[in-house]
Amino acid sequence: MSEHKILLDESELPTHWYNVIPDLPTPMAPYMGPDKQPVTPESMQAIFPPAIIEQEMSDQRWIEIPEPVREALYLWRPSPLYRAKRLEKMLDTPARIYFKYEGVSPAGSHKPNSAVAQAYYNKQAGIHRMTTETGAGQWGSSLALAGQMFGLDVRVYMVDVSYRQKPFRRSMMETWGAEVIPSPSRNTEAGRNALDKDPENPGSLGLAISEAVEEAAGRKDTNYGLGSVLNHVLLHQTVIGQEAKKQFEKVGDSPDVILAPCGGGSNVGGIMFPFLADKAAGKDIRMVAVEPTSCPTLTRGHYAYDYGDSVGLTPIMKMYTLGHDFMPPGIHAGGLRYHGDSVLVSQLYHEGILEAVAVPQVATFEAGVMFARAQGIIPAPESAHAVRAAIDEALQAKEEGKEKTILFTLSGHGHFDMAAYDRYFAGELEDFDYPEDALGKALRTLPDIE
Amino acid sequence: MSEHKILLDESELPTHWYNVIPDLPTPMAPYMGPDKQPVTPESMQAIFPPAIIEQEMSDQRWIEIPEPVREALYLWRPSPLYRAKRLEKMLDTPARIYFKYEGVSPAGSHKPNSAVAQAYYNKQAGIHRMTTETGAGQWGSSLALAGQMFGLDVRVYMVDVSYRQKPFRRSMMETWGAEVIPSPSRNTEAGRNALDKDPENPGSLGLAISEAVEEAAGRKDTNYGLGSVLNHVLLHQTVIGQEAKKQFEKVGDSPDVILAPCGGGSNVGGIMFPFLADKAAGKDIRMVAVEPTSCPTLTRGHYAYDYGDSVGLTPIMKMYTLGHDFMPPGIHAGGLRYHGDSVLVSQLYHEGILEAVAVPQVATFEAGVMFARAQGIIPAPESAHAVRAAIDEALQAKEEGKEKTILFTLSGHGHFDMAAYDRYFAGELEDFDYPEDALGKALRTLPDIE
Repeated sequence: MSEHKILLDESELPTHWYNVIPDLPTPMAPYMGPDKQPVTPESMQAIFPPAIIEQEMSDQRWIEIPEPVREALYLWRPSPLYRAKRLEKMLDTPARIYFKYEGVSPAGSHKPNSAVAQAYYNKQAGIHRMTTETGAGQWGSSLALAGQMFGLDVRVYMVDVSYRQKPFRRSMMETWGAEVIPSPSRNTEAGRNALDKDPENPGSLGLAISEAVEEAAGRKDTNYGLGSVLNHVLLHQTVIGQEAKKQFEKVGDSPDVILAPCGGGSNVGGIMFPFLADKAAGKDIRMVAVEPTSCPTLTRGHYAYDYGDSVGLTPIMKMYTLGHDFMPPGIHAGGLRYHGDSVLVSQLYHEGILEAVAVPQVATFEAGVMFARAQGIIPAPESAHAVRAAIDEALQAKEEGKEKTILFTLSGHGHFDMAAYDRYFAGELEDFDYPEDALGKALRTLPDIE
Repeated sequence: MSEHKILLDESELPTHWYNVIPDLPTPMAPYMGPDKQPVTPESMQAIFPPAIIEQEMSDQRWIEIPEPVREALYLWRPSPLYRAKRLEKMLDTPARIYFKYEGVSPAGSHKPNSAVAQAYYNKQAGIHRMTTETGAGQWGSSLALAGQMFGLDVRVYMVDVSYRQKPFRRSMMETWGAEVIPSPSRNTEAGRNALDKDPENPGSLGLAISEAVEEAAGRKDTNYGLGSVLNHVLLHQTVIGQEAKKQFEKVGDSPDVILAPCGGGSNVGGIMFPFLADKAAGKDIRMVAVEPTSCPTLTRGHYAYDYGDSVGLTPIMKMYTLGHDFMPPGIHAGGLRYHGDSVLVSQLYHEGILEAVAVPQVATFEAGVMFARAQGIIPAPESAHAVRAAIDEALQAKEEGKEKTILFTLSGHGHFDMAAYDRYFAGELEDFDYPEDALGKALRTLPDIE
């Protein structure tokens, strides 16, 4: 039996996704339209295929993974569960530390788990093109890969400053055949307006979303794909937690605490939702979302209806939010710079089922380097947030002299983030925190829905 | 049973390395010293520990892998054997294509397989520091990782032009705690001489080797590590082929042809040597080393005694060589730019047991992109040479309407080589070939040994 790396055969890949909606303690707060009425499936048809809309609102607990999606997932799944024995030794902790490594996908993170499903359902619906946005490049790479696998053209609006600073993420998307457009662009009204106001506009994720959605809404052959936040994305990620459960069974262990980085919530949903039934059945499992102190949505945000994007094109969702006008500082964990959070994660957090913790930037890189020196793998800056929290849990176990089983998601490798590590070693990284009264400002623009 | 990805449990990691020396049809041609007499183990003690020197010259067929080395290998081994079903479909070939994927190591290639063994034996011998050189960065990264795992300080002399062009490979080495020095440097006489002649000297692999060897030879606490060419390096890589054999047994298939990129020979030895016994027993297996047309050591070189480095510090070895003065053009497959080749690979090629083929640069990138679009993984430029040859074999099988089982080593991913893919897409890559009489020149400086 493996002690370092617990593997599953491909025959053990989950056959179904787990949908948490029917198991929520209270019904999910519905998405609202601009008319402040619950959105209808019809209103989403301009940008999503029928199967995705159905999944977004489904009350079925288990949804079968289509065979072609499973075939695509086989390229990297099931992913390994590692026992971090060298890290345990380095920390001299009585805790057992496990991590589920999602960097084994060709794009280097967990994001392709949803990208292949989205590409499949769009292809099935007769769609030939998809648009999306990308900041750090993880999601854009994943949809580029998935589009190539299912024969869809993919256009990625990449935040201009990232387009220039991360040329190799762009090369990766092009290698998989996608077209990458720096945003803001002159392709869309949103882009043209932004450029007319400021020809030097460096772009933002909110603006890139607007461009991608505007193009998809305006073209019959083109749909849109989002990499986090929405229910169907979290649904597709539940293969992670289901596999982890099987892997723990194989070694006769089970987690006391589960940690995942939290931006839009796809990591949190992916690893934690499949363990909720055990918790509901009385098992003592803590589940902790880890976010940056610079963008402390769950730990310091407000639980309210807000827009999913910064310009107000999306439905209005009940979630923890810092306000859709909130502009987080330019930390390197680009994937965690989101003003809001998944409705499902927000609701479970509000009900005390999930916990959250915020960690500062420098400490996450310190943890990333410790991890790399112990286990070899260099974590993506987003993933280093979970590493930080796992190390803190392990050190606490040491202080208390208590055994404990820690599980975290190492959501991706840092091969395209080495410039951030350079800045860490050069002492150039900053921590960000906010005085008590600094976080309310963007909340004044919340839409008025109870 | 898996059809896409054949995995081994860590209990199936080989317990021994396979040493091909006792199975050579004729005795190995001995290394010669500057006095033109066979080198003695004593003369190697200035830079290598006893266990490595013993392995370099051993006539034992099986050499046990020490438990601490196996513990280190568990971080990424056994590596997966993939069936490239999507590539087969894209090529519409009756051939079955398998690849052994070595990019799963933290450094992203097969190189750590030997680095951890070298670090272990040096630590065991009371050595505290190792020096080495790196061009493309794969070997330097691997020794940095291994040094960190076994508590050795590592100094890497990195060819200056690579140091500037591949800053992220440098960051990776620093993340694992190594010191990276651009070469030529003022640390060594070799470096100072080069800089005195030309302060703008961009460096070369030969010069970086000289610096690393000079420093190791001059310090009692410091040894030197090489990433290819030598017998012990090929020995350590035989875990690759041994695992592949077990993986083929699991699916009830076996290779008709085995392909690997060939620079110094560590990939070729690693995957092919463990299959030689089957070939000797009468099984019809072709084994083909794949090299660049720009550095066609096996296909167009001379079989003769020559120096392993460009300045004549190493022993003189009988091998295929283009002459130690040969300067290959700056192709992106930096790991294949070597004037010579492993003595063992050279001898087996000379005796007709191994074959060789040379492929041009643009065709390797074309193959790399096809592979990335079919299977997701973006190959390193070195690895793309084997991909090219595998695709050619599969297309030939299609033309002949014949089934065939193809195995190749995908020795690494291309995450740190995306600039090369950019240049391919921009149409900026060149092919290199040599007229009939262009390759003899550097051979005039061969040392005079029969």
